[in-house]
Amino acid sequence: MNTRGTAPKQDRSRATRQRLLESAVTCLAEHGWSGSTVTVVAEHAGVSRGAAQHHFPTREDLFTAAVEYVAEERSRVLREAVRPGRSAYEAVETLVGLYTGPLFRAALHLWVAASNEPQLGPRVTALEARIGRETHRMAVELLGADERKPGVRETVQGLLDMARGLGLANLLTDDSARRARVVAQWARLVEAALAE
Amino acid sequence: MNTRGTAPKQDRSRATRQRLLESAVTCLAEHGWSGSTVTVVAEHAGVSRGAAQHHFPTREDLFTAAVEYVAEERSRVLREAVRPGRSAYEAVETLVGLYTGPLFRAALHLWVAASNEPQLGPRVTALEARIGRETHRMAVELLGADERKPGVRETVQGLLDMARGLGLANLLTDDSARRARVVAQWARLVEAALAE
Repeated sequence: MNTRGTAPKQDRSRATRQRLLESAVTCLAEHGWSGSTVTVVAEHAGVSRGAAQHHFPTREDLFTAAVEYVAEERSRVLREAVRPGRSAYEAVETLVGLYTGPLFRAALHLWVAASNEPQLGPRVTALEARIGRETHRMAVELLGADERKPGVRETVQGLLDMARGLGLANLLTDDSARRARVVAQWARLVEAALAE
Repeated sequence: MNTRGTAPKQDRSRATRQRLLESAVTCLAEHGWSGSTVTVVAEHAGVSRGAAQHHFPTREDLFTAAVEYVAEERSRVLREAVRPGRSAYEAVETLVGLYTGPLFRAALHLWVAASNEPQLGPRVTALEARIGRETHRMAVELLGADERKPGVRETVQGLLDMARGLGLANLLTDDSARRARVVAQWARLVEAALAE
């Protein structure tokens, strides 16, 4: 008699996959690419190496899926942030917040690894392009920006580049005090530029 | 009879050191931290491993010196760029230029490695703080900014964060066309903000 129904089995499989992805992000953020093998991630997730390979046959599969997972988490954060009546400061703070914390840290390790790993490069590049477009679209919405006006598109792009740079500045030291001052000033400048 | 005078010997030693530093930067930019051992760098420089270790006893010594060398090269580029009569666009373009190309690429690999390597972390962090202060000082000069005015300091800092973010965006793909448009628009924003 089969006591394991299909639905619970699928649930377990999904939970294992989810645990592996979360562990991949944690390991990347903490140990970088070279320290994050499938074995290390499986161990962190409390999953056998065989079960991990059932879900993700190669290391590249695992980490590309992990970046996709990071991207979806970031989209979720952004979608929740899009609410009417937000100030420019809150919008800029939310956008900058996407580039600090372990999700960005994990993505950063993967980008840098992808620049030297031929097997990783094209997948991470394609994913990055998609994430970039989506982040831009949501930033426009969050800021209430009208991209038909000349310069507005580049104002928003530059703001996201600044957010990425602030994320990088936060990699080695806690940069939060300086970052808050930069966010306050540039929220003011971007608000004025968008109202022009 | 000693045909090798002291001065030429010192010159040779200095030339070897210089070659090792240049090779360290090239190897870092091309192969990342994990692919850049002292042996790889010595081979690239055409120097024996022993000679390399005479100059730099540890891998950390070699790469910290390499980042210092990168920092000095970047300072040199900046100092040469500070000339009267430059437009805001030229100033912003010069600053952004510091964060693209192999020098930034090498520094980026080292930052990311330093975030996971306890032996590298404190040295790279201290060096980064020095480079950050120096870059800021020269950016203020280049832009003709008056930091006594409120907000000006943060305007310049945000611009340098944007430049860093643009450098990161250029890691996986050639981002130069988009970058030129963002630089044009942000030069306009920064110029207006500094004139306020």
